[in-house]
Amino acid sequence: MQKKINAEDINNFEQRYRATLINSLGGFKSLVLIGTRNKEGKSNLAIFNSFFHLGANPPLFGIIIRPDSVERHTLSNILETGVFTVNHVNEDFYKQAHQTSARYPADVSEFDAAGLTEENNPGIYAPFVKESSIKITASFRQKIDIEANGTIMIIGKINHISLPENCLSEDGFIDIEKAGTITCSGLDSYHTTKRLSRLTYAKPDKLPQEIN
Amino acid sequence: MQKKINAEDINNFEQRYRATLINSLGGFKSLVLIGTRNKEGKSNLAIFNSFFHLGANPPLFGIIIRPDSVERHTLSNILETGVFTVNHVNEDFYKQAHQTSARYPADVSEFDAAGLTEENNPGIYAPFVKESSIKITASFRQKIDIEANGTIMIIGKINHISLPENCLSEDGFIDIEKAGTITCSGLDSYHTTKRLSRLTYAKPDKLPQEIN
Repeated sequence: MQKKINAEDINNFEQRYRATLINSLGGFKSLVLIGTRNKEGKSNLAIFNSFFHLGANPPLFGIIIRPDSVERHTLSNILETGVFTVNHVNEDFYKQAHQTSARYPADVSEFDAAGLTEENNPGIYAPFVKESSIKITASFRQKIDIEANGTIMIIGKINHISLPENCLSEDGFIDIEKAGTITCSGLDSYHTTKRLSRLTYAKPDKLPQEIN
Repeated sequence: MQKKINAEDINNFEQRYRATLINSLGGFKSLVLIGTRNKEGKSNLAIFNSFFHLGANPPLFGIIIRPDSVERHTLSNILETGVFTVNHVNEDFYKQAHQTSARYPADVSEFDAAGLTEENNPGIYAPFVKESSIKITASFRQKIDIEANGTIMIIGKINHISLPENCLSEDGFIDIEKAGTITCSGLDSYHTTKRLSRLTYAKPDKLPQEIN
């Protein structure tokens, strides 16, 4: 039995109910921890489920930031220093990752508060999550103000990647499931995955085949 | 053993290898079929893995479109008619969903070519995917040209939702796993999910608890 919800229903929902509904409507999402540091050197870590691919050449991605949320420290640090890290979330620390979304004061590092380990690489100002299997260094590329609702889109450029060697296939595909990366739905639901298959590049004259 | 890849490596990779690598780097992704119709009434269906949540009030989301790809028909139809549908992808038709990414001529409907069923609702110009468990009607809200790489971001507003009644929780959470929605990684890898748990809203003074 299908339930139908229309625009007026959505408009009339209680605020928290609407946020929960709309956030869980768009499918499974990328789940990453973004590590930054302010000019004074204080580290910050925040969970994001809005990471999206923008292009491979140059290697670009976007994230969406709500300036009135805990994400505002991430935003100000990225704009101050121009550098940040993107760290995948694995099953064995997803509760700690979720905990970084609590509203801590600016002088508290979410690494300490949530129980994750700060890792630092020479020459890279932003901190990494030691527990994470796949880590990316990114530089700030562009800021786009989205007038429709006051959110901000940050475009980042991928500079360095660290990943488990046995998760990189010959064709460049990274087996993030094998690396332990998890996904999320809505604001608070976390999921492991199980591959159905990879499929061959789609062509008009034949149906896709399973690659593995 | 971690493999390190730097910006120069990325720049020097063969084009297809780089696209495969960078597309699989950002975690699991939302996977939807976008249904549109041109002014002449010809339907179009295209698979997207760039759907992202923008806000709940008003209910907004974004998708990224590459104008030089098969996605160009989706773009022109959205701009022509202002309306489109967003349909979740389920396990039992993911190969057909993938097949919509083949480069068909403009006069071929991907519904027919890939073997999916067009469903039409009175008063809604764009076609739905009958096989899909969760379906959204959206209207065009804004177009943003992303100068960094020539891609286009379309902001859509959610107007109607159709979902299985038994997948809607009391708090507004939609159990998309129960609805059969799948996720993807990279350009061609499809995955079912298994919930770890939902977690309580994070507060600074206590660790998150499992909701179910």
